[in-house]
Amino acid sequence: MPVGTLASVKGVPQDILEELGVQILLGNTYHLYLRPGVEQVRKLGGLHRFMAWPRAILTDSGGFQVFSLNELRKVTEEGVTFRSHLDGSSHFFRSESAMEAQIGLGADIIMAFDECTEYPADRARIQSSMELTLRWAERSKKHFEEHKHEVPWATEVTTQPDATQALFGIVQGGMDHTLRKESAERTIKIGFPGYAIGGLSVGEPRALTREVVESTLEHLPADQPRYLMGVGTPEEIVEYAGLGVDMMDCVLPTRAARHGLLFTSEGKISIKQARYAGDSGPLDPNCGCRVCQRYSRAYLRHLYASNEVLAQILNTVHNLSFYLDTMRAVRHSIKLGEAARFPSVVWSQPKP
Amino acid sequence: MPVGTLASVKGVPQDILEELGVQILLGNTYHLYLRPGVEQVRKLGGLHRFMAWPRAILTDSGGFQVFSLNELRKVTEEGVTFRSHLDGSSHFFRSESAMEAQIGLGADIIMAFDECTEYPADRARIQSSMELTLRWAERSKKHFEEHKHEVPWATEVTTQPDATQALFGIVQGGMDHTLRKESAERTIKIGFPGYAIGGLSVGEPRALTREVVESTLEHLPADQPRYLMGVGTPEEIVEYAGLGVDMMDCVLPTRAARHGLLFTSEGKISIKQARYAGDSGPLDPNCGCRVCQRYSRAYLRHLYASNEVLAQILNTVHNLSFYLDTMRAVRHSIKLGEAARFPSVVWSQPKP
Repeated sequence: MPVGTLASVKGVPQDILEELGVQILLGNTYHLYLRPGVEQVRKLGGLHRFMAWPRAILTDSGGFQVFSLNELRKVTEEGVTFRSHLDGSSHFFRSESAMEAQIGLGADIIMAFDECTEYPADRARIQSSMELTLRWAERSKKHFEEHKHEVPWATEVTTQPDATQALFGIVQGGMDHTLRKESAERTIKIGFPGYAIGGLSVGEPRALTREVVESTLEHLPADQPRYLMGVGTPEEIVEYAGLGVDMMDCVLPTRAARHGLLFTSEGKISIKQARYAGDSGPLDPNCGCRVCQRYSRAYLRHLYASNEVLAQILNTVHNLSFYLDTMRAVRHSIKLGEAARFPSVVWSQPKP
Repeated sequence: MPVGTLASVKGVPQDILEELGVQILLGNTYHLYLRPGVEQVRKLGGLHRFMAWPRAILTDSGGFQVFSLNELRKVTEEGVTFRSHLDGSSHFFRSESAMEAQIGLGADIIMAFDECTEYPADRARIQSSMELTLRWAERSKKHFEEHKHEVPWATEVTTQPDATQALFGIVQGGMDHTLRKESAERTIKIGFPGYAIGGLSVGEPRALTREVVESTLEHLPADQPRYLMGVGTPEEIVEYAGLGVDMMDCVLPTRAARHGLLFTSEGKISIKQARYAGDSGPLDPNCGCRVCQRYSRAYLRHLYASNEVLAQILNTVHNLSFYLDTMRAVRHSIKLGEAARFPSVVWSQPKP
């Protein structure tokens, strides 16, 4: 899922996202809550209509974003007090308000309010944080069940007149396998149509991330979506898909593009380097995207070096194309029953 | 002609420019000379191949850009010494080097090196500046004739094996009708396949611009392209086309877009205004561009207020679409033999 923080995947118009085959976008509740505001989006018919995006959208609960504010937040049993990164104004988010915001935004998939446990943390801290997330998950579900028909598009005539959003639960438990198992089991007991693995990519070593993903997946139902939040590199998303993860989101393809870091079938390229100034070849000779089909590395390097906005546009289109191609290859491999072999099908780059 | 200063129309990929019906782009020799450098572009096959733009390109001579540097330049008989706005490095441009740069860049239409006379200026100053431009025009033509086959694409197999660039002359003469007439006649005597009216849009009142354009056009052959440099608003381009101008370039549609100023069939809109925050209507209900067909004013306002790059992209696409639609309507009207009436055909906005 490409990330469209403020109802826009930075630098790419929606019609190009469609052409790239994007099936679902992620929006950040915290950011949208501040700008343009939930009430504004609700009045305009919800996020799909607001941003003119007819395909699926997932919003996060705001929990992780608030967690990232560090100094600007304070967590209590009831919820989180935080200060806006824009103007320093004070806000309070609790399970109910996170649900209210996400119902108002009207994404297809919304997330239970959770506390993302910091890393490192001792077992007592991980456990109490996990317990808090479980209580918040119950409250999230309760509020959602009572208010799910308030979604902006509820009154619209659809083929499924009772269509509502899907609320996913989030498994926490830090890097502790026993607590991950407990968190998974108790979250499943509350009952959600899909489950996310949260609390990773918070500074832990990659090998540990993989271990925790693997052990947590064992405890999540394989016939429901399993969503790993906030990963990863192309190598990682292939690896996690191989472990059984169905959904992932990451700012990496779009953010790296803005810094001139491009993913190709032949490895990573930092397009700002002078070595590309006279390179008339395509960015990635094995890529069929509109950037690789039309422009040279020399031109992309010039745009980046000259700080042209087109650099961000073209770089982002290519990186998204590479990620989406990668996941298409993964799905194709799975369909062909070769899941175990698919890393080698996707690209030949040795893994780090 | 949309302006693509550094081999990119800021914020718009080339395929969208094609879709918008852009027939010709303008590149700035001064900027391209500094970045990525003429030799680099030449080695990569010229500007068309470098920027992956198969349609026409015009480059200016660098004269006006250097003129705009003010404190950073010094003009002598031989040429202009100027300092780079990027790093302060010193450069010298003369007729021959302006030709050499433009032949190396390889645009379809290139411009003679000229001095853009400042405004206001007294008659003596205008005359001596005009004489200098005439001497430079002769030198430009001489150098071009001797070197025109050095264009990067000269050796390529084309349907016209002797195809070269077209070098246009530039008429100066300040705001003095007699000197404009003399400049036109003596430039025509040197002989070019097209003529530009330079030295306008330099701070003079709009009524004076129009007067000078009108009187200069009288002295330029109607069966050759007549190019008015650096104008203008939608109202102005329609007006000047009505007077007989065939070509115009201006940064206004693209630069205004970056500042949230949008041209519509119902007048100008400053999309940053709070009044558009809840406006679910299209930017311009009479516009068929991909922006007006898909997005609301509320969304465009949100993108602008949130400083999203997509704001610049969508705003620029719309403004270019509006300009190109305007010129298409002008051409259509001319074809229908209603040239005299076409301002009212294009849009109903009262002229300023």
